[in-house]
Amino acid sequence: MELQKSPLAPASFPVMADISGVRFATVEAGVKYKGRTDLMLAVFDAGTTVAGVFTKSKTASAPVLKCREYLPGGKARALVVNSGNSNAFTGRRGEESVGHILSAVATAVGCDEREVFSASTGVIGEPLPHDLITAAMPGLNEQLGAASWEQAARAIMTTDTYPKGATRTAQIGGVDVTINGFVKGSGMIAPDMATMLGYIFTDAAIPPDTLQALLAPSSDKSFNCITVDSDTSTSDTVMLFATGAAGNEVPAGANDPVLANFKRALDEVTLDLAHQVVRDGEGATKFVSITVTGAENDQAAKRIGLSIANSPLVKTAIAGEDANWGRIVMAVGKAGEAADRDKMGILIGGVQVTQDGMRVEGYDEIPVAQHMKGQEIDIVVEVGIADGRATVWTCDLTHGYITINGDYRS
Amino acid sequence: MELQKSPLAPASFPVMADISGVRFATVEAGVKYKGRTDLMLAVFDAGTTVAGVFTKSKTASAPVLKCREYLPGGKARALVVNSGNSNAFTGRRGEESVGHILSAVATAVGCDEREVFSASTGVIGEPLPHDLITAAMPGLNEQLGAASWEQAARAIMTTDTYPKGATRTAQIGGVDVTINGFVKGSGMIAPDMATMLGYIFTDAAIPPDTLQALLAPSSDKSFNCITVDSDTSTSDTVMLFATGAAGNEVPAGANDPVLANFKRALDEVTLDLAHQVVRDGEGATKFVSITVTGAENDQAAKRIGLSIANSPLVKTAIAGEDANWGRIVMAVGKAGEAADRDKMGILIGGVQVTQDGMRVEGYDEIPVAQHMKGQEIDIVVEVGIADGRATVWTCDLTHGYITINGDYRS
Repeated sequence: MELQKSPLAPASFPVMADISGVRFATVEAGVKYKGRTDLMLAVFDAGTTVAGVFTKSKTASAPVLKCREYLPGGKARALVVNSGNSNAFTGRRGEESVGHILSAVATAVGCDEREVFSASTGVIGEPLPHDLITAAMPGLNEQLGAASWEQAARAIMTTDTYPKGATRTAQIGGVDVTINGFVKGSGMIAPDMATMLGYIFTDAAIPPDTLQALLAPSSDKSFNCITVDSDTSTSDTVMLFATGAAGNEVPAGANDPVLANFKRALDEVTLDLAHQVVRDGEGATKFVSITVTGAENDQAAKRIGLSIANSPLVKTAIAGEDANWGRIVMAVGKAGEAADRDKMGILIGGVQVTQDGMRVEGYDEIPVAQHMKGQEIDIVVEVGIADGRATVWTCDLTHGYITINGDYRS
Repeated sequence: MELQKSPLAPASFPVMADISGVRFATVEAGVKYKGRTDLMLAVFDAGTTVAGVFTKSKTASAPVLKCREYLPGGKARALVVNSGNSNAFTGRRGEESVGHILSAVATAVGCDEREVFSASTGVIGEPLPHDLITAAMPGLNEQLGAASWEQAARAIMTTDTYPKGATRTAQIGGVDVTINGFVKGSGMIAPDMATMLGYIFTDAAIPPDTLQALLAPSSDKSFNCITVDSDTSTSDTVMLFATGAAGNEVPAGANDPVLANFKRALDEVTLDLAHQVVRDGEGATKFVSITVTGAENDQAAKRIGLSIANSPLVKTAIAGEDANWGRIVMAVGKAGEAADRDKMGILIGGVQVTQDGMRVEGYDEIPVAQHMKGQEIDIVVEVGIADGRATVWTCDLTHGYITINGDYRS
């Protein structure tokens, strides 16, 4: 199936500066797809630190289990990712496949296997033909540096219709550092987890504990606040690698004020990447921001936001450009969080639609209908209970989603 | 929009015997739809008892709030239901509309307003034109008895493509009693609530407390085990009316052995009706049974079952006749309940697909692919933890769902 580029895609892949200490290579290993790259190797200079967050699925893939095992070491020398097969629910054989791959990478790169991280993405439950990957490793290692950021991002795509990258610069104690990241994902995207495959790289010098303490909350506000279809993947992984090549003053911890600027830049990168995943949501034609205010607390606000964002009825109404705010009320009601019907307000595209538990007097649907015809839909729900607040992002649910997922595997 | 009859519909509406003490009338009140009935009045003889279960939505409709208020009285003389407008999220005005309607019914029927129950189903948030309903009341009352069970079931339909009825007979202490029911619903159908509009009638003599103690668990195993789209309505209502005309020995309580046969028949009626709702799921082409065994407890089994049943990726795969069991694994994983990857088994159409955490050796997809082409899909998941067990029912997710919900309101 040939997928058309999402209408919500950015105009182009961003121009991303090199990050000293990181090199990429990609190849057509033939795991599943024909005529495109499907294997990416990233190699890091010695001294690179690593942080990661992973799916909370109880049926996590074999590579995720191995990443979790090696992450506490805090050091990374290589990252290897294949697309086309997720090596999930493949039992002992799947674990053996990961072992073969990590061993081949460690040999080619000349490092400890515990400094190699891997991921696999694609169909679940098929044995991974790891020999195709191990056989490609020596050649890949020789070509290190030949692949651009965009080429690396392309090699890990599955049903993505465009490669997704983001870049920011920051200062740590007066030293310039760069943060680059790329991500893949367009279906089986749901929150409460680390979500999809996302890789972020920086030349900053940051110890692993601090790096982890930066990545986790940044992911919570970005990747964990998006949903395409409420389905949580078995392979979700976000990792952050720091080569230290920038030579900045090493921060004392995540709360060291020297990191303030870096944190802001990192948050911008994770949010940019998370939004790009939503913009490539399977079949998406609208990018939807949902802000919930006045909930019992921030957690309650997020739950209400996700209840709206995951509602098939809300999402199909948006696809139909129908300002069917009654379905938003329904989704608030089913979230199970405190809500006061007689205080609830809804704004669509900045226009107050309901107030105090009913439609505003003299409601004029024309500007709202106009907003619904656009590609960027803004919904605000004022719950009327307390001060809890959250914003989540999703896309609409269209015929495209059904078509893609009715015959993805075949 | 003209909806085609669901391919999963039963051949015809069942033949249903009269129930002494219940009479129906229907009319085209013109609340929203043109050229079809949209208002149903049922009147009960004095002495009729009533039980009910209602939506758990925090934004429940005005009629639901009123039903909850009057239910503890335990007596019913009338039921009035309109389709086309749900009178939900209509604020004080909505409550006033319910008041006007109940008052008009009480006047026409000659009963206390607290013995009148109402429901409204259709679009959320539009003021209900209650004057169309109150104006029709004297005429409706004069025609009582003129409408058949099928006509009553038709008047309360919204996007339903066929009227849904079920009937059983039972014995209570040697006396024959009849249980008839009808139900509407095809979208905004999700569990953990009382679900859609369902009305069940019997000529048995059963006190209200006992009736409630029978209805609640029966709904839990039927209506609360189905899902079309994971969206919980603001108006879900199931009520059971008992006229007492059969003259059976009055049971001492829900656990009185004299009720054993009645319970079984009631469970059959609620399950039959619940299945008919799934069979009319918006856009449905497949009826899907999902049985989960070996979970930590029955509740955990139900949660895993619903995680599978609500997964857009599982549902689109079924629509595409794709035995994509990897998505079932994903949905088990995201349910958050204990699961043991290395013990998990999946059967589709009775064929063992996975065992001990991976695909069975020599897996032959041909019989499974054959099963997927049918209209009745059977999925069994053995979780491998303990003895918890549940069955839930759903339908597939198709282009039809998107089409129906992209322009239902317009």
